[in-house]
Amino acid sequence: MSNAATPFPTATESDPVALGWMQGAPPPAERLVRFQEMGHFQFPKSRWAFANLRQLVPTTRIWRGEGPAATLPRHDVDGIDDIRFTTLTGQPMRWAESLAANYTDAIAVLHRGQLVYERYSGAMAPHRTHTAFSVTKSYTGTLATMLVHEGVLQEGWTVPHLIPELAGTAYGDATVRQVMDMQIGVDYSEDYADPNAGIWEHARAGGTFPRPPGYAGAQSFFAFLRQLKKQGPHGQDFAYKTVNTDVLGWLIRRATGVGYGELLSQRLWQPLGCEEDADMMVDSEGTEFAGGGLCATLRDMLRLGEAMRCDGAFNGRQVIPAAVVHDIRGGGNPEAFRANGPPTLPGGSYRAMWWATHDDHGTYAARGIHGQAIVIDPWAETVIARFASHPLAANVHLDPTSLPAYRALGQWLRHHRSPA
Amino acid sequence: MSNAATPFPTATESDPVALGWMQGAPPPAERLVRFQEMGHFQFPKSRWAFANLRQLVPTTRIWRGEGPAATLPRHDVDGIDDIRFTTLTGQPMRWAESLAANYTDAIAVLHRGQLVYERYSGAMAPHRTHTAFSVTKSYTGTLATMLVHEGVLQEGWTVPHLIPELAGTAYGDATVRQVMDMQIGVDYSEDYADPNAGIWEHARAGGTFPRPPGYAGAQSFFAFLRQLKKQGPHGQDFAYKTVNTDVLGWLIRRATGVGYGELLSQRLWQPLGCEEDADMMVDSEGTEFAGGGLCATLRDMLRLGEAMRCDGAFNGRQVIPAAVVHDIRGGGNPEAFRANGPPTLPGGSYRAMWWATHDDHGTYAARGIHGQAIVIDPWAETVIARFASHPLAANVHLDPTSLPAYRALGQWLRHHRSPA
Repeated sequence: MSNAATPFPTATESDPVALGWMQGAPPPAERLVRFQEMGHFQFPKSRWAFANLRQLVPTTRIWRGEGPAATLPRHDVDGIDDIRFTTLTGQPMRWAESLAANYTDAIAVLHRGQLVYERYSGAMAPHRTHTAFSVTKSYTGTLATMLVHEGVLQEGWTVPHLIPELAGTAYGDATVRQVMDMQIGVDYSEDYADPNAGIWEHARAGGTFPRPPGYAGAQSFFAFLRQLKKQGPHGQDFAYKTVNTDVLGWLIRRATGVGYGELLSQRLWQPLGCEEDADMMVDSEGTEFAGGGLCATLRDMLRLGEAMRCDGAFNGRQVIPAAVVHDIRGGGNPEAFRANGPPTLPGGSYRAMWWATHDDHGTYAARGIHGQAIVIDPWAETVIARFASHPLAANVHLDPTSLPAYRALGQWLRHHRSPA
Repeated sequence: MSNAATPFPTATESDPVALGWMQGAPPPAERLVRFQEMGHFQFPKSRWAFANLRQLVPTTRIWRGEGPAATLPRHDVDGIDDIRFTTLTGQPMRWAESLAANYTDAIAVLHRGQLVYERYSGAMAPHRTHTAFSVTKSYTGTLATMLVHEGVLQEGWTVPHLIPELAGTAYGDATVRQVMDMQIGVDYSEDYADPNAGIWEHARAGGTFPRPPGYAGAQSFFAFLRQLKKQGPHGQDFAYKTVNTDVLGWLIRRATGVGYGELLSQRLWQPLGCEEDADMMVDSEGTEFAGGGLCATLRDMLRLGEAMRCDGAFNGRQVIPAAVVHDIRGGGNPEAFRANGPPTLPGGSYRAMWWATHDDHGTYAARGIHGQAIVIDPWAETVIARFASHPLAANVHLDPTSLPAYRALGQWLRHHRSPA
């Protein structure tokens, strides 16, 4: 799918700095991006909002700790912009063109641990955080897998073992493992294009989407989760539903007794040597939005990706046990994935909130709506992190000009650069 | 005034960790601190909220930059807790007792640039930010004085020279200098004890205090400022009104073309070598609350104080021009201060949003409600930073057990410790 197929302004036409969102003291009324007016989800205002979410909603801090940042040695490589590939719809395209096609706000590439490419546009800069949307889920899934590895969380437990409040809900007979892999039968829709879908009810409950006047729905993420009814069996088809990740976040809190934000800081942000604090959306009960609330810098997302590529070893330490990385990158069950997996990931699978492609590069990824991504290509020894603000939420709109570009980049880097 | 004179639980009884605010997943209903329920201003919930404001309201980041933090060399000095002084009401008291009397959340002391004392309690820790309330004003006044020094802002300009929108308001014929020194005749009350006072209207407009259902008032700080009417002359009596600082913040933005938060980062947070980012409350137009929105760490407030004590030189550079520091610490006009200055600061004055005592130590201070403070004692070569969550807003409730304690500390340190 090319831009030409959409009715939206191009990346250049919708540049948030050129459009002047929130510029001026005060900004003119027609240049305001207000949470109450859903501006943070409305393209093209979203292109400013995604890089400024903490100005719109309450957040908590994911502390980076006191130590120095883990170095990402810089070795700019020329020629990447000219890499040619064919989109999934059969069109020839250059790498540089793919960035505009995807409304890329920021993108960077590590090859064998070296920062070979880094670009920021619009409202972004290296030190600025951008919403990661459902890339958050992969952080949650990694933490959960670490806890399973330690025995603090057990795959076979049913959810009420730790959360009695969820007995009698969709999760009453679901196991921790089924939650981690999104094999849950629950009456809830993740269709972002449907304003009545459960995903929006969930967001309103958590305060991450504005509530209409007289709103009488759930007042928190957990209150919403307690309302969910079972629909269909667990342990069968993969079905991507954000509520599962928030149940997993709840399980993690109960298993550890530590707040999610604090745990994320202790277990990943600090040992990864992240260079900036991250922001995380919280609801009115102080519950972090485990399914999509993280806002991070691009380089700090690269750090997680590089740790995963290196069997969990990064920044001079074993940040994540190798067994945890192997479990995740091995992927899930492609049979379970077939019915509901996106058409752009044929033969793929989902495990512990990560997407596996099962391609010949062993590529796996963290993915968030509107184009947020961490892509790890073990064969090519590359990690790519991307923030974007595509007009449409679903990544099937970005994949045709992204997935083949990333594959071509990996092949080019592997053949172009001799081993260090 | 001692604790015994108030009907409030003591500092120990109101410890926010012991009381369990926002603990649990989710916290029980009676342990929630919600913005909409004004919990962040209700003692004793305030003792949690003041250390967690960004979880309750939108904020922007004051970036610390990429460099290392400026060192505050640690030389713990024994005996400070036992320093004896007499309160302003004539009672003998030990330093350690004064901390509880003032509901101190965090306090630290620099002597000749060395960190000789540092204590955190309740919800606080060295890396955590706490609301600075009107200590924010002194940051704003320092930035403004720097701009005046550079000629970017001129004392004699009337406000409409930069903000035509304020012609016809209280500020139509006010000068920049009069705004800086709070010598403005404006129909607006800063009485925190009166729920109908203008300060609460201002806070509701800016979204830093909850709006009632059907709220139809101003939608932003600037919209509220445009409604203010003149009452009495300018340039006469000092009258402490937060709106003046937000006018000054607006003037700074118009003079520089840079957002307040960005300017605060560039001019102070980065060159001071602050160790953590700060948070700053913003309204729905992205306007930083220049009159009271800063949340910082204790040590980072010390860094501004030490720079002021050292004629602006700190962290290996001239962060603030010496002439700017001399201007501020010289204080304002005690005659103008007499009518409305707090009774605990007799003979004092106000200049550029800083409080001068004109005592024989040359003490001057940044002060915020509920006990936030930076106190600089040039004679004793000390800087004290304090965060507190006293049940009552006005510092006259803390001064009796604070001001003589700080003076006694300065005398003790000067005589106890030989020059380095």
